[in-house]
Amino acid sequence: MKINTSVLHLCTFLLAFSATTYAQNHNSEKPVQTAIVEQNLDENSLFDQTLQKIKKEVDAEIARGIDVPIPKDLAGGYTHERHKKNYATAQNAGDLYRIEKDEKYAIYIKEMLLQYAEMFPELPLHPEERSYARGKLFWQSLNDSNWLVAMSQAYGSIYDYLDKEERNQLEKDLFLPYADFLSLENPKFFNRIHNHSTWGNAAVGMIGLVMDNEGLVNRALYGIKNTNISEDARDDDGGRILKPGQKAGFLANLEEAFSPSGYYTEGPYYQRYAMYPFIMFAKALEDKRPDIKIFEHKDGVLIKAVNALLNLTDADGDFFPLNDAQKGMSIYNQSIVIAVDAAYYYGDRSPGLLSVAQKQGRVTLDEAGKAVAEAIRSGEIQDFEKSSMNLSDGPLGNNGGITILRQGKPGNNYSLVYKYTSQGDSHGHYDKLSFSFYNEGEEIIQDYGFARFVNIEPKNGGGYLKENTTWAKQSIAHNTIVQNETSHFEGDFDTGSNYNPELYFSDFAPDDIKIVSAIDTNAYTGTKMHRTMVMLENELFQNPVILDIFRLEGEKENQYDLPFYYQGQIINTNFEINTPEQLQKLGKENGYQHLWVESSGKAAESNTKFTWSNNRKFYTLTQVLDKNDEVILARIGATDPEFNLRRDPVYISRKQGVKDALFVSVLEPHGSYDPVTELGKNSFSQVNEVQVIKNTTAYTVVEITGYDEQQILFLLSNKEVSRDKKHQLTINNEEFSWVGPYIVINK
Amino acid sequence: MKINTSVLHLCTFLLAFSATTYAQNHNSEKPVQTAIVEQNLDENSLFDQTLQKIKKEVDAEIARGIDVPIPKDLAGGYTHERHKKNYATAQNAGDLYRIEKDEKYAIYIKEMLLQYAEMFPELPLHPEERSYARGKLFWQSLNDSNWLVAMSQAYGSIYDYLDKEERNQLEKDLFLPYADFLSLENPKFFNRIHNHSTWGNAAVGMIGLVMDNEGLVNRALYGIKNTNISEDARDDDGGRILKPGQKAGFLANLEEAFSPSGYYTEGPYYQRYAMYPFIMFAKALEDKRPDIKIFEHKDGVLIKAVNALLNLTDADGDFFPLNDAQKGMSIYNQSIVIAVDAAYYYGDRSPGLLSVAQKQGRVTLDEAGKAVAEAIRSGEIQDFEKSSMNLSDGPLGNNGGITILRQGKPGNNYSLVYKYTSQGDSHGHYDKLSFSFYNEGEEIIQDYGFARFVNIEPKNGGGYLKENTTWAKQSIAHNTIVQNETSHFEGDFDTGSNYNPELYFSDFAPDDIKIVSAIDTNAYTGTKMHRTMVMLENELFQNPVILDIFRLEGEKENQYDLPFYYQGQIINTNFEINTPEQLQKLGKENGYQHLWVESSGKAAESNTKFTWSNNRKFYTLTQVLDKNDEVILARIGATDPEFNLRRDPVYISRKQGVKDALFVSVLEPHGSYDPVTELGKNSFSQVNEVQVIKNTTAYTVVEITGYDEQQILFLLSNKEVSRDKKHQLTINNEEFSWVGPYIVINK
Repeated sequence: MKINTSVLHLCTFLLAFSATTYAQNHNSEKPVQTAIVEQNLDENSLFDQTLQKIKKEVDAEIARGIDVPIPKDLAGGYTHERHKKNYATAQNAGDLYRIEKDEKYAIYIKEMLLQYAEMFPELPLHPEERSYARGKLFWQSLNDSNWLVAMSQAYGSIYDYLDKEERNQLEKDLFLPYADFLSLENPKFFNRIHNHSTWGNAAVGMIGLVMDNEGLVNRALYGIKNTNISEDARDDDGGRILKPGQKAGFLANLEEAFSPSGYYTEGPYYQRYAMYPFIMFAKALEDKRPDIKIFEHKDGVLIKAVNALLNLTDADGDFFPLNDAQKGMSIYNQSIVIAVDAAYYYGDRSPGLLSVAQKQGRVTLDEAGKAVAEAIRSGEIQDFEKSSMNLSDGPLGNNGGITILRQGKPGNNYSLVYKYTSQGDSHGHYDKLSFSFYNEGEEIIQDYGFARFVNIEPKNGGGYLKENTTWAKQSIAHNTIVQNETSHFEGDFDTGSNYNPELYFSDFAPDDIKIVSAIDTNAYTGTKMHRTMVMLENELFQNPVILDIFRLEGEKENQYDLPFYYQGQIINTNFEINTPEQLQKLGKENGYQHLWVESSGKAAESNTKFTWSNNRKFYTLTQVLDKNDEVILARIGATDPEFNLRRDPVYISRKQGVKDALFVSVLEPHGSYDPVTELGKNSFSQVNEVQVIKNTTAYTVVEITGYDEQQILFLLSNKEVSRDKKHQLTINNEEFSWVGPYIVINK
Repeated sequence: MKINTSVLHLCTFLLAFSATTYAQNHNSEKPVQTAIVEQNLDENSLFDQTLQKIKKEVDAEIARGIDVPIPKDLAGGYTHERHKKNYATAQNAGDLYRIEKDEKYAIYIKEMLLQYAEMFPELPLHPEERSYARGKLFWQSLNDSNWLVAMSQAYGSIYDYLDKEERNQLEKDLFLPYADFLSLENPKFFNRIHNHSTWGNAAVGMIGLVMDNEGLVNRALYGIKNTNISEDARDDDGGRILKPGQKAGFLANLEEAFSPSGYYTEGPYYQRYAMYPFIMFAKALEDKRPDIKIFEHKDGVLIKAVNALLNLTDADGDFFPLNDAQKGMSIYNQSIVIAVDAAYYYGDRSPGLLSVAQKQGRVTLDEAGKAVAEAIRSGEIQDFEKSSMNLSDGPLGNNGGITILRQGKPGNNYSLVYKYTSQGDSHGHYDKLSFSFYNEGEEIIQDYGFARFVNIEPKNGGGYLKENTTWAKQSIAHNTIVQNETSHFEGDFDTGSNYNPELYFSDFAPDDIKIVSAIDTNAYTGTKMHRTMVMLENELFQNPVILDIFRLEGEKENQYDLPFYYQGQIINTNFEINTPEQLQKLGKENGYQHLWVESSGKAAESNTKFTWSNNRKFYTLTQVLDKNDEVILARIGATDPEFNLRRDPVYISRKQGVKDALFVSVLEPHGSYDPVTELGKNSFSQVNEVQVIKNTTAYTVVEITGYDEQQILFLLSNKEVSRDKKHQLTINNEEFSWVGPYIVINK
């Protein structure tokens, strides 16, 4: 309860600082890197906390001494990890030098850089040959770009400290040839629309800005003009290097990779990775080349991208694992710290970002981080509100997108993620119209993510596993329709890259209804897929339910499988479970070879019900199926000789020998269980019956009956999406009329 | 930062209170139930926080109105849950009345009890017939006893408020016949050594104390003298009702169920359940019959039992799931709140208990809870330190036991639980010399627990599932040796109940070594099992490792299986994995029918290594196996038509056609992984080689070599356990001499 006088100091300081710093930096003609803080803030400031933490780390590294080993190892090995540690430490030491002006940090950076400058001229390509763009310090140019992005900042921090001769030596022997190596000598790496190139562009551009080398900066911004890259060239992941007529460079990447809404086509996991060079180079440009107005580029897309990324998270701040993605990657990653602080400082100072920064528990050691820390201390903080939204995909925002439906109350906040994006480049999965569903931070219906253990060396050196191709990318690994046991676009990347589903409509306006509908006509030639997902709050249910209407119109008879990758323990089913004496694989290829069939049999009469528990709560899937339809309970893990896959379960409903099909499902969270009090509440579903009242090419009508016989009708126009269009429909002599593509009626 | 004057009030109050209250209560001849607090403490007191919370709950129930329905339902059903809610609310209302003297609480209890008194005389047995001891309000007498334990307290709270006529009516129509029903009419239920009887005894005794009915109290304390129970009588779980020459009553249960160390033979899950009536009746006795000195009975075993129970938990406070047990049951259960507060108040006021109470976040609304809340507020709180310990089993402490080995540092605290107890009555499992291993609150090598979903109605009404017998109790479901695919004692309860393993020795004195060794000669006729487990801290390893030496001496050739139920994702193996095209069951019976074989093949040359990851950390099991030994990777879930079992994995090493066998295993926690930074550290084991240097009936010597060729020798005397005995051994011309049953030598 002691009141410290430093708080008073702080207040005075804050007032003085916030009014002047940004303006000062942005008005100077040719700014010099200067110290941004003259004294410490109090210990409750995130800025000071970060500073102390980083100082401890850097001081420990300085005490350990510099080591610049000859490159040899892959990720996880000594030389790889040492060079990573070197650039991270040098970058941090640079921040400390800017703030504290303690010469020991400048000396540390200088000596390290001189050792690199001594090694670099004679350095051959890294001995490991597995990359399409091998590096020098690392096995791939990507890591070398990471190095140069960080070292550019370290160099910038001590630029004024070095004498001219030292600078000349470093630039001639190290930075200039390094920048040329990453660009002119690696055009396949440098000249793409891809996160690799963004890193390369940022590396070359940032060192160019410090060196005041306009050639490098322009090369970074606009790419290399003439290259001889073959049109068939591919990267290590099978991604195309070139698209016809494609531009290159940082600005092109900014324009091409982000949709106008700020969605990054590879998905949030790679967006997180790409944000680092985007933001770092943008900050450097804003500082040295304010004329470019980089944060205003494409209608301020960089700031929008931060907002999009923060919305693509569950309640714990973990990114939705769309496309190739590692689960557990979250807003706590350093890239997002940098992105959030920059979005606050260079954007509209949105107070919601402050609560994200506070959760992150650290800030960048520069003007942006400073501004964030001060705003938090002065009480401007507000919650970052996530709500239902569409995020368009594609450079022009017309290549489909992602919709997130959200509803709930504290302790039961639901998010549904619906994916109707384009392919997503080489990291894309074949999962048109797929979805995943969360309650708070728990996956209830999961997206598998990728099959890879990043930086875990025993697992293929931390690289992509073959099961990423044979399993994780395949359609059956996702919560969407698979026709005839074949993946969308027959799993062909080039075909997939040509198409995307279309948003049919969405509506988030009503308090109790959040709805999205999208259509795909290309994943399977001759088959139209139309999926509508409704998050519906109603007095019939304890919690919002998901009404999932998946309509198929096929030209020929097909088999349609609709998987739900539920997470948890089966509690109850109303259909017969056949447990076999041996487990067989579900199929031979396209991912089916990875599933063991734990049970398969006919659907139940009327509704098929499936209840499971997850994290002390219950969930029931009620489906309208024909009695000839099949229900399969399966588990991942077959054809997995190295146990690379998680043994997760799936519920699959299957229709066979039909052209058109309709899967209507209600996903219902209910009840709770507490293993401490051992009280189980409402372990039974509250949905008494779901019926399809009508299903034509024009309309689909679904009726849900609760246990007290109350009913909800959902009426959907399958053809007319106009908001003004009036519809009239007679069902069982009852007349319904409404305006717009859908209506929910409480009977 | 506002300083509240109530804090000063509190301090004065605390000083006055703590010195007098306990003495007052304990010196009064025939104490009357009185209010224990005249005013609220400040809002930071756990007592006041609990009071406010309970008041809110009770007030809501009072507003809802009283309902005393005709009994009809099983657990989860309306009448069952309503009667439970009634007694819990009445008990709480009684506490509130004692504290606040608000008449509305007394009226509520009185009216509810009168409704019960009206219904009871005509009430037949509960219509559900599945219990060996059917109840009246509930389907089993056990729940009826829960009711009477709580209602005795409610009645006691308003005893002085009621007039004589009201008391007469309640006692004549309700309490006396109810107590007789639970005892005289249900001797099989009342006269056992079992948690059921403890509840029955407490119910009858507690109402006896309130009614001042010495007959009831004596019946509760000493049991019913003459009953006609058949010697073959069994309860619903197959447990024997009578053992020859067995005593009965509360004191006998106290003496028989607890070992001198406070371990309860059924295991911590049921100990937690039994603690409630033990403590509640003890508190009532201490109040009304201090002459019995109940808290000093059997050398203070009740207080020791609380200490034992708190030690039988992982870092999260979850009980180790020994024998029949639901995972997730923890110190946060209300029974443990009551037990901790009582152990503090009636025991030696150990300040470590205060930190447990603080974690629990609530206290009992009586003198005990008051004392705890005040001691916390006055800063007496200390950490509850858990260390390595033996807990003996059996009334005299000579029926084997449990040893917990603990070591580690914050973030990596390891607990190994080694079980060499007696059968554990009807809730016991067939798992002599089994173990489980935890890092903090994470199960690394798990014990399955029971196959039951308590109070989840769709799962067999929340009762025990048949898989509890066919799987959970079987030896193969545990981390111990299974001979010839048959469970210990051939799974026969009566045979198992006759024997227990013996502790060979244990030693927790050295800082870097915690060790326990036990021998069983009865689980398999003709086979001696001797398992020694060492938790070893050494500079060779990043963390303490477990050295597990399992020696078998058989009279004939056997197959020996040693399972390790690891939890997590396989990272790496050095033996060949054969992934089959179909999954087969591991066996036909004794639990083997529940395992799918995911891989089986020969052990590796020299050492067999198996690495997995769990919660961002790595673990490697290094085993010394012969090259003809088999390694099986299997998964639970076969022969499970209702999906009642968890799909958890197991690693099994198998030796076939041998009389004697030695399994030497090193279980090594290493490294870490962070999905946010994506940094993986030390994903490879640090154990270079494990070798058996010598293995005779007299000695077993194991050598562990680290990656820098440093070595550790572990020498064990298999026959001489004396601490003073001098041993001398020559191995490869090197002489070793030491005193006591073992030695660890750093080479």
